Amino acid sequence: MAVRLPPPEPAAIHPVPGVRLGTAQAGIRKPGRWDLLVMSFVPGTTFAGVFTRNRFCAAPVAVCREHLRAGAGIRALLVNTGNANAGTGDEGLANARRSCEALAASLGLTPAQVLPFSTGVIMEPLPMDRLLAALPACVAAQTEAGWVAAANAIMTTDTVPKAASVRWESGGRTYTCTGIAKGSGMIHPDMATLLGFIATDAPLGADAAQRALSEATDRSFNCITVDGDTSTNDSLVLAATGVAGGPVLEEGTAGWDAFCQALGRVALQLAQACVRDGEGATKFVTLQIEGGRDLAECRRVGKAIAHSPLVKTAFFASDPNLGRILAAIGYSGVADLDVQTVTLYLDDVLVALRGGRAASYREEDAKRVMAKEEFLVRVLLGRGEASATLWTCDLSHDYVTINAEYRT
Amino acid sequence: MAVRLPPPEPAAIHPVPGVRLGTAQAGIRKPGRWDLLVMSFVPGTTFAGVFTRNRFCAAPVAVCREHLRAGAGIRALLVNTGNANAGTGDEGLANARRSCEALAASLGLTPAQVLPFSTGVIMEPLPMDRLLAALPACVAAQTEAGWVAAANAIMTTDTVPKAASVRWESGGRTYTCTGIAKGSGMIHPDMATLLGFIATDAPLGADAAQRALSEATDRSFNCITVDGDTSTNDSLVLAATGVAGGPVLEEGTAGWDAFCQALGRVALQLAQACVRDGEGATKFVTLQIEGGRDLAECRRVGKAIAHSPLVKTAFFASDPNLGRILAAIGYSGVADLDVQTVTLYLDDVLVALRGGRAASYREEDAKRVMAKEEFLVRVLLGRGEASATLWTCDLSHDYVTINAEYRT
Repeated sequence: MAVRLPPPEPAAIHPVPGVRLGTAQAGIRKPGRWDLLVMSFVPGTTFAGVFTRNRFCAAPVAVCREHLRAGAGIRALLVNTGNANAGTGDEGLANARRSCEALAASLGLTPAQVLPFSTGVIMEPLPMDRLLAALPACVAAQTEAGWVAAANAIMTTDTVPKAASVRWESGGRTYTCTGIAKGSGMIHPDMATLLGFIATDAPLGADAAQRALSEATDRSFNCITVDGDTSTNDSLVLAATGVAGGPVLEEGTAGWDAFCQALGRVALQLAQACVRDGEGATKFVTLQIEGGRDLAECRRVGKAIAHSPLVKTAFFASDPNLGRILAAIGYSGVADLDVQTVTLYLDDVLVALRGGRAASYREEDAKRVMAKEEFLVRVLLGRGEASATLWTCDLSHDYVTINAEYRT
Repeated sequence: MAVRLPPPEPAAIHPVPGVRLGTAQAGIRKPGRWDLLVMSFVPGTTFAGVFTRNRFCAAPVAVCREHLRAGAGIRALLVNTGNANAGTGDEGLANARRSCEALAASLGLTPAQVLPFSTGVIMEPLPMDRLLAALPACVAAQTEAGWVAAANAIMTTDTVPKAASVRWESGGRTYTCTGIAKGSGMIHPDMATLLGFIATDAPLGADAAQRALSEATDRSFNCITVDGDTSTNDSLVLAATGVAGGPVLEEGTAGWDAFCQALGRVALQLAQACVRDGEGATKFVTLQIEGGRDLAECRRVGKAIAHSPLVKTAFFASDPNLGRILAAIGYSGVADLDVQTVTLYLDDVLVALRGGRAASYREEDAKRVMAKEEFLVRVLLGRGEASATLWTCDLSHDYVTINAEYRT
């Protein structure tokens, strides 16, 4: 499989009964780009959300948390790209509220029934005039078939739109779970990715939805990293319209496991799509850390490898300078790690054993693996039973170019 | 001042009475390079050392710790570049011991009186035949004036040799403190830099030497980062020959403060020289974090900024995309940080105030600062009285090139 996925096939992205999506060109940062999205939901839709843990969280994230807590029944989302409305102080907060008011007015809702999202440049004022001017067209454009257009409208440095969709049967009913996400740089989610929106027509209570979303996030978006930078705007929302009917799903009921599996598949596909489209990425690397004492230390080791600029540039060069991986394991912070029990594989090639190069290791074997666009780095810590899987990409010249020239 | 320092003026690097240095071309990794260094010391020289905390510490680091503990009276150091002898298992340990034995034999010492050091590629066997063959020439070349040649012989991806020297008078005597270091990539010392050797003719006891070295390290080498990768081979050694004579210096005696000041200056000059010569560096950036509750949280904030690829590429581009600095502060791990109290300056330009862009901020002012090769990022956390200063560089295309092609 190539690093980057092809754009989603519209026919494979199933509409979710009860959800309508509309997009518009507001010219937030540059003219001629689809940069505004409105999603609206039937009454009674249940919401769950996970958001960035960055203390400099963006104004819309603060308003999202507030509106979700208020419990007025969320009915619409408003998303802009080109400007993150982060690091914008009180004015930013006021702008996020004003945009909710404007959308609420045009849909006959209260402002607390709207969730706002922004992504783009940090610390610049949101151009409210242009956003408000484009809103009516965005509302008017809404359709159930708008998912792929919506995936396009939320892109920033992304090169391909990201959408995933699963349909499953349970108890004689057909359910759908469809999601979109964006994210390419400043990707090291600590709760959720930059922006992700998943909807299902399965009927869910708020607690069950939140639990399912948190669990799915923990095994998908929280296991990816492009550059180790946790964004100010990370937000992932699950909306359950309930339009499919049938009994409300919760843990222990028939249909719960099938739903969680479907949600997990959509979340994982979207998260991996963000890494595959990582800024400048030429490699998609799976890190499998096994034999740790607990999940936390497996993740610590995986993140040290995934964040090391030296490891990432070696990935880029297809250069098996694999001592850099040992060095990253060594400084990952597992204080009592005994390197004598550490084993390293690249796909099926045994690289290091008992803290040193394996006798059977031949560099051409590692070269053959690293020349591929996708491969597996497998670390056996030899300390316990826990394991973790993470996904990351390489650090290429294009990453430097994209981020040195991001605003030009 | 330019990012890179000019090569040291030989006349400014004072010999240290009681220390002799010799270099040779062993062809460890490539022929025609000065890659071997022997330093020897008069009997009675006191040693102190700080070493990497990387669990995958190199074989020579393990042997250094062992020989320093043994207390047989260290009399010589042996340093090779081109090969780190790290991730080399039992064979690596045996090779480190054999090289000590060989040097001890030629100097009439015991192996435990020799400290070995290696730097270069990780996880490749040390070519013992070439190292041992070059040893006699290296020993024969020793001279008190060999410091600058030694600084050259320990370089790997360094582009300039790094040496610093201070002379001071105290109690009617003249003392000297001279040091050399190497380091350009895999620089995020956690105890010491890649390799640093400092000698003084001041008389010191072992405990006082260790304390002075640890304190100087904590304010110099432990405050720099190029890429956040803590090396497997970091080692910094202080040798006090005592040849200057006079009373033994220790805390509370006359002359102690002057010595610590001199050591601190040499350590800081060497540490900053490593950042200035950071792989691909085009900017030398000082990070001053003030108003923290304690030193640890100030450093955590500074390191988040210094390690962010997004911040570093913005430095490279001289692009005041300064929201990325706020984002890094926000995810640095200061759990109860109130962004309303955070202030950000670039040199004397007020950028952000109370969590958002300052009203007076004009982007052209920040652009003017960032266009310079050296500038100051000043963060006021507004939580307490602690502060920390760190030094780092940018992330450029050349960093990617150097590390993608390191072994070719």
